[in-house]
Amino acid sequence: LDHLAKPPGSLGRVEDLAVDLAGILGSDEPTLRDPQVLVCVADHGLTARGVSAYPSSVTGAMVRTILAGSAAVSVLARAHGLPLTVVDCGVQADLTSLDTAPAAGIRFIRAPLGPGTADAAAGPAMTAAQCRSALALGRRLLTGLPGNTVVLGELGIGNTSAASLLMVRLTGEPLAACVGTGTGLDAPGLARKRAALATALRANEQARTPEEILTALGGFEIAVLTGAVLAAAEQRRVIVVDGFVTTAAVAVATAMAPATLECCVFAHVSAERGHRRWCALLGARPLLDLDLRLGEATGALLAWPLLPAAVTLLREMATLTAAGVSGPTDPATEPGGQPRGQPGPE
Amino acid sequence: LDHLAKPPGSLGRVEDLAVDLAGILGSDEPTLRDPQVLVCVADHGLTARGVSAYPSSVTGAMVRTILAGSAAVSVLARAHGLPLTVVDCGVQADLTSLDTAPAAGIRFIRAPLGPGTADAAAGPAMTAAQCRSALALGRRLLTGLPGNTVVLGELGIGNTSAASLLMVRLTGEPLAACVGTGTGLDAPGLARKRAALATALRANEQARTPEEILTALGGFEIAVLTGAVLAAAEQRRVIVVDGFVTTAAVAVATAMAPATLECCVFAHVSAERGHRRWCALLGARPLLDLDLRLGEATGALLAWPLLPAAVTLLREMATLTAAGVSGPTDPATEPGGQPRGQPGPE
Repeated sequence: LDHLAKPPGSLGRVEDLAVDLAGILGSDEPTLRDPQVLVCVADHGLTARGVSAYPSSVTGAMVRTILAGSAAVSVLARAHGLPLTVVDCGVQADLTSLDTAPAAGIRFIRAPLGPGTADAAAGPAMTAAQCRSALALGRRLLTGLPGNTVVLGELGIGNTSAASLLMVRLTGEPLAACVGTGTGLDAPGLARKRAALATALRANEQARTPEEILTALGGFEIAVLTGAVLAAAEQRRVIVVDGFVTTAAVAVATAMAPATLECCVFAHVSAERGHRRWCALLGARPLLDLDLRLGEATGALLAWPLLPAAVTLLREMATLTAAGVSGPTDPATEPGGQPRGQPGPE
Repeated sequence: LDHLAKPPGSLGRVEDLAVDLAGILGSDEPTLRDPQVLVCVADHGLTARGVSAYPSSVTGAMVRTILAGSAAVSVLARAHGLPLTVVDCGVQADLTSLDTAPAAGIRFIRAPLGPGTADAAAGPAMTAAQCRSALALGRRLLTGLPGNTVVLGELGIGNTSAASLLMVRLTGEPLAACVGTGTGLDAPGLARKRAALATALRANEQARTPEEILTALGGFEIAVLTGAVLAAAEQRRVIVVDGFVTTAAVAVATAMAPATLECCVFAHVSAERGHRRWCALLGARPLLDLDLRLGEATGALLAWPLLPAAVTLLREMATLTAAGVSGPTDPATEPGGQPRGQPGPE
């Protein structure tokens, strides 16, 4: 990068991104082959305690909207020409019989681990067997995707609650610093959410290992994403991480296998309370900071064009030598800079 | 936007961007037609005082690299499929006879106002007639471009010096807050730059109006860009603003015609000292913050995909009604949220 036709470092974080992508893919001239979007969806037992501004039924309605091609993630994936796979990891609504085939470029996989998780405020959200199945499903889904790059996202009413619980247990941060308004809770709603999460933490104090914590507090979609992240990192794929909930999956995977983080590109820092701090604790520097808080991989897709831009710059820019630029003036020998009128480079 | 299938406001600054673009183009369903990249290039008399890490000869070498299709701006414009117009507004090197035709998608216009500006530390950088010609050239160039959207950038060794001088005079900020290391000055170089700029400010104290200040301290490329910005705003085109030097042109244009700012989208906050403060003083909120400091419209092109994404989301997303989502649960009537198992939306 320092030999390309620009002042060294002048492309800033895009140069860091190019270096990261080259490192993940093990190539000086990396190529993002056949990038894929994977969105995992599930419902959460905690929603019965009013932790979200929306009812669980919205999860199913939004899956239908994604598949019809008219949710934000559908629009952005189509705009960038990226295939989108949507996985029912445990949606409460019955999605066995959808009216129509998904829109072009979108694939739907039904693999529910249950009709949403159990209420984590009353005990573990999943059984240990469900969590193992979810991790295995994520590994299987990821391995079945072509290409060397995957953009990860999620959907599920109540899933910022699950992510907040995982943040508390994985980072040791106080609950209040890990809980936000999600899809848009008002003040009483936020108080209700905090109380429900405090109850869930007390009800699951016995969980110790990352997998036990995921079993106790996670959602099905987070567990499936965790498996996908683990497999993607093992296979040295580029993992483009969306917002708060996807970060939860990355954090669980990193707790299980620290090298996972090397393969992750954090797309954006979400407006959801806790995400900025969690990114900092993970040592992640998200690319965008645009107050996004939608999920669905939308933040990851808004940042996406920076990745092909970074690798294309690396591959297609001229070197300084080819550009006929010899480098900076040496002020020791030329204290006054170049005289006017000198036609060529030094 | 609040009726689309997402929580209100959840696309954050991308929603603001969509609103801004709709406002500029005067449409609820704006379309960015035939977007163009315009890069203005010139040299600066101040470089003889050692204000840059590179000699003026690099400007001409970089024009050749851009036209060959292998500079950063060439790579990014090609990657996004945007036509690129490069204008010699006064490069020191003789660019009359280029070896080969420009690469596909790139057009070169020679319209030099001189072989670089005069030394602003010894008096005005331009004559009043040169500045008028530059402004008229910018208006003419812009009006000749098709489409309703223009991405603006610049190139010219020494032009952060001209931009810093304009910042001091237009904002009243102290010189030290307006001067950075440009392409990469070391500490003695930065001290030399500051001293030269202080001399230039003293030598041009008589300038009062925005046009007089531009004449005294600006570069040819900045003056041409100023004319282009004025014309673009009058024609209600979307103006995508690159970094520190392009901001200088926007600031001069805004001092001449305040409504100009309504049509500007600030692509990124540069690593160049002064840019963050100048954006804040203009009330601008740049989209990216990636430590870029290359110019050439590269920051504008890295942010570019956010603009089509914003308008495409506005045009193609389903409404909440179409998605079968009735809106948030009313906690007053449903304090416990939705019961599990309810199949559809409320």
